[in-house]
Amino acid sequence: MTKPSYLKKNIAMMAIFGMTLGGNAFAQGNLDKAEIKADMVAALEWQEAHPIFAAAPTDWTNGAYYTGVARAHRATNDMMYMAALKTAGYNNDWNTYDRIYHADDIAISYSYLYVDMTEKRKGMVDLAPTTKFINEHLYVPNQWSNPAKKGGVQDILWWWCDALFMAPPVITLYAKHTGDNSYLEAMHKFYMESYDKLYDKEEHLFARDARYVWTGSDKDEKEANGKKIFWSRGNGWVLAGLALMLEDLPSDYEHRDFYEKLYQDMAARILELQDKDGLWRTSLLSPESFDHGEVSGSGFYTFAFAWGINNGLLEQSTYLPSVKKAWTALAECQHEDGRVGWVQNIGASPEPASQDSWQNFGTGAFLMAGSEVIQLLDK
Amino acid sequence: MTKPSYLKKNIAMMAIFGMTLGGNAFAQGNLDKAEIKADMVAALEWQEAHPIFAAAPTDWTNGAYYTGVARAHRATNDMMYMAALKTAGYNNDWNTYDRIYHADDIAISYSYLYVDMTEKRKGMVDLAPTTKFINEHLYVPNQWSNPAKKGGVQDILWWWCDALFMAPPVITLYAKHTGDNSYLEAMHKFYMESYDKLYDKEEHLFARDARYVWTGSDKDEKEANGKKIFWSRGNGWVLAGLALMLEDLPSDYEHRDFYEKLYQDMAARILELQDKDGLWRTSLLSPESFDHGEVSGSGFYTFAFAWGINNGLLEQSTYLPSVKKAWTALAECQHEDGRVGWVQNIGASPEPASQDSWQNFGTGAFLMAGSEVIQLLDK
Amino acid sequence: MTKPSYLKKNIAMMAIFGMTLGGNAFAQGNLDKAEIKADMVAALEWQEAHPIFAAAPTDWTNGAYYTGVARAHRATNDMMYMAALKTAGYNNDWNTYDRIYHADDIAISYSYLYVDMTEKRKGMVDLAPTTKFINEHLYVPNQWSNPAKKGGVQDILWWWCDALFMAPPVITLYAKHTGDNSYLEAMHKFYMESYDKLYDKEEHLFARDARYVWTGSDKDEKEANGKKIFWSRGNGWVLAGLALMLEDLPSDYEHRDFYEKLYQDMAARILELQDKDGLWRTSLLSPESFDHGEVSGSGFYTFAFAWGINNGLLEQSTYLPSVKKAWTALAECQHEDGRVGWVQNIGASPEPASQDSWQNFGTGAFLMAGSEVIQLLDK
Repeated sequence: MTKPSYLKKNIAMMAIFGMTLGGNAFAQGNLDKAEIKADMVAALEWQEAHPIFAAAPTDWTNGAYYTGVARAHRATNDMMYMAALKTAGYNNDWNTYDRIYHADDIAISYSYLYVDMTEKRKGMVDLAPTTKFINEHLYVPNQWSNPAKKGGVQDILWWWCDALFMAPPVITLYAKHTGDNSYLEAMHKFYMESYDKLYDKEEHLFARDARYVWTGSDKDEKEANGKKIFWSRGNGWVLAGLALMLEDLPSDYEHRDFYEKLYQDMAARILELQDKDGLWRTSLLSPESFDHGEVSGSGFYTFAFAWGINNGLLEQSTYLPSVKKAWTALAECQHEDGRVGWVQNIGASPEPASQDSWQNFGTGAFLMAGSEVIQLLDK
Repeated sequence: MTKPSYLKKNIAMMAIFGMTLGGNAFAQGNLDKAEIKADMVAALEWQEAHPIFAAAPTDWTNGAYYTGVARAHRATNDMMYMAALKTAGYNNDWNTYDRIYHADDIAISYSYLYVDMTEKRKGMVDLAPTTKFINEHLYVPNQWSNPAKKGGVQDILWWWCDALFMAPPVITLYAKHTGDNSYLEAMHKFYMESYDKLYDKEEHLFARDARYVWTGSDKDEKEANGKKIFWSRGNGWVLAGLALMLEDLPSDYEHRDFYEKLYQDMAARILELQDKDGLWRTSLLSPESFDHGEVSGSGFYTFAFAWGINNGLLEQSTYLPSVKKAWTALAECQHEDGRVGWVQNIGASPEPASQDSWQNFGTGAFLMAGSEVIQLLDK
Repeated sequence: MTKPSYLKKNIAMMAIFGMTLGGNAFAQGNLDKAEIKADMVAALEWQEAHPIFAAAPTDWTNGAYYTGVARAHRATNDMMYMAALKTAGYNNDWNTYDRIYHADDIAISYSYLYVDMTEKRKGMVDLAPTTKFINEHLYVPNQWSNPAKKGGVQDILWWWCDALFMAPPVITLYAKHTGDNSYLEAMHKFYMESYDKLYDKEEHLFARDARYVWTGSDKDEKEANGKKIFWSRGNGWVLAGLALMLEDLPSDYEHRDFYEKLYQDMAARILELQDKDGLWRTSLLSPESFDHGEVSGSGFYTFAFAWGINNGLLEQSTYLPSVKKAWTALAECQHEDGRVGWVQNIGASPEPASQDSWQNFGTGAFLMAGSEVIQLLDK
């Protein structure tokens, strides 16, 4: 092709757009609902045209993506999302991924449960693999859930904080769908193990896993500025996961207060760490490490904040300006062809992203954020 | 994205385009063949990028869509259509859908038969599932085809008029392909049952099913204006199905006159019901119920009319103005990205559509219409 | 749609573009790396959205295409290519196509081997079908490899020159990956059979198969101008295959000199046959038969020339002008939507192409060419 590339706005153009459109919109406090919906559809269309996985189409990357697609359908009722959900589920034969001991491998079932609870056609979704996974994951001891092996990094079932997005919201939705709240008790036990091991009660943030928890030793992992390593996406998994759980936990659930408080405490801390351009850096306490916005963590935070306003758990006057600023900036990370850029690749700690870097779970975070932002505009 | 939505022409723009391009084209009686072909390809590309199904990729929605793709290939010989047909068939393992008693579930085989009869590579298409389905559907009694159960809405095999698109054209093509015309006799028996039960000999239209046939009772279903409920897409299924059948029925077929007359009688009545903007409303006798054009019914009518002119069964001077007007209006229902909008969703009676509403079978109707219109331009 | 077609530049526009952009670029001897990368991504995106096969997704057409995708990933490290490779392999269950005696049916394994050797995640690629195929293809006698059947067109294993792209580079890469160089000996035996039968030592070109080898009989196949029939894509398969092989053959491999000389001799002859517009005609010695550039053959030549410069086997001063001219012309064959046009369809001898004609293996050739051209620009 001899025409100039149509795929990307360059940084300069983004700055111009930001001034002329996004900037004004934010200055005026206005976001356009139809524009957000169109951006979301464009993100879906681009992602569906660019299938990707780490291990298989049923893996956690698609789990997070299709959770975003499900949330987008819930918010808009646009059948384009439902068509994508059904097509993916059908092609997956409604299977989870393989490792029954691994929270990642049940994340895809959030979308299956959503389809089963939403689609009028009965019997289309086969929930048997989901049921089998959840029952074995929670109730059949393995080398991770067996406390006899205490001590190492992987000595609990959900030993990395991402797991708190991958499994608990699915278990919560499954309990709601089946009406069997005993699943919540089993879940809470494992959640508390992660909380006790990884939650930093001073910072109100989660270490990604035990390697990043300070022990007072000289060997503790540190940022160049001497601070603790708190990964943006890692905390995004937790905070977004909490919002998803809180939506579906019974109002009289015994430990609901615990999850509400954790969600509010984390949100308050995350709010302080937002950069002035509206996006969070990959290293929360060392923004200078990679000093640019990153979309997956920022998308999950934006979702969680907007959800909290929409559901009365966060103060609108405090969080709304942050949400507007964040969405405006997230939208500027989307290419004209729909690609959601500035997504940190698969990893376990802060790494840089770029305008072109993308991943399905980044698109999922974008869709989750947009889904709550448009509901916010209805208020 | 901060740019304005690129996905849709709004109504105002459609009106403007209609005046400046479509309107002129129609006023001058001109349609541009290359433009129609490009619109058809864009429709295919959009639909392939947005897979959708009701129950499975082999269901009737895809059956109708891929019938349109097959017709588009037949009319243009553009390998893009054949690539899509082969890919879909391969991914379906050349299976029908499941319910052997249900006409819907054999519709997909029209495309399989077309590929087998057209593609030079031998042995690629597996017609065994098609053969099995047709043989059991026609010859093994079930609770629908068993006359002992007379009386209710579903007391005949093809108890809803959509069925007359789903099965008879496939059976006709199968008889042609195998050279075994005994299938036509079995088909005719079931066709006549539907005709006797659902065809309104005064209106020359089909009731969708027995619920919409007037019995003289106060409980008869009526439109708000007191008229009978004749569904546009429902009659589109029948009329387009008749054109498909007539193409493949032997010239000396015993009941050919019956089908030709039915086709001509219905066409004459449908012609009267076309709205001045070129499109039909979802409720044929109550256009004011939802007073906008609808693409699936209109597309099937346009196909059937153009096919009739092309094949000498309808008078060109009578039907050509209608076809040109209809195609011009259909083309204006397509979004710039290829999406065919204004399609009523899955249903059984008149319901509204919208600029954004789409379905694969609507795209199929659009492709069927375009396929005959471009052949008309060759005359 | 009432807007003008956005799919194609017409010839006039191509000429204009050529003058203003491509023409200038070539006149100045400049190629823009970012533009080439964007064109390659657009080609991938278009092709992924238009899946096509002759017999199955594992057939040689996809084998050649995904070889191009693998080369593009190797050259750019753009994860978009790896996502496509993994998705295709996963959907194929890492299978070859069926005919164990047929070189075509192992071509897809080049991409499987590439993923296995490149992707960090272990155990994702199942190489068992590849291993089984290569072992049986090389070591289990069949009616082609059995010399008892000498005499006809198909009396050797690799009886058509395309086969020298389909199997030998895969076997070479497999030998490298497994470290078992005994495969190279078996390969060489079959390669020499093809060379002896099909290579024209005067013209330094391959006949497509024995039907095109001159015997001195009046019945020899001739072009209208009385010359031998040498097919552009056929020789493209051989020359590109040689470049792929030479990359992976051990530096001390016994027959390496033979392959280097064959590669250099053919390249020198092909260089002479390039048309002044930068592209080769489908009939190498009868360019007037179909006097327009064709992309699959030209793409393979461009790849092979640029690879030779990059790897010190071809003289930069001699081949660089040809490569630049060729790439500039190849890029002008790409439509604005990414489609690579001017590709001769599946065949066995020179036939015409058109602006719209495309095939996945043509896209593969385009990607292979671009992959080496961008590396050339790094030098």
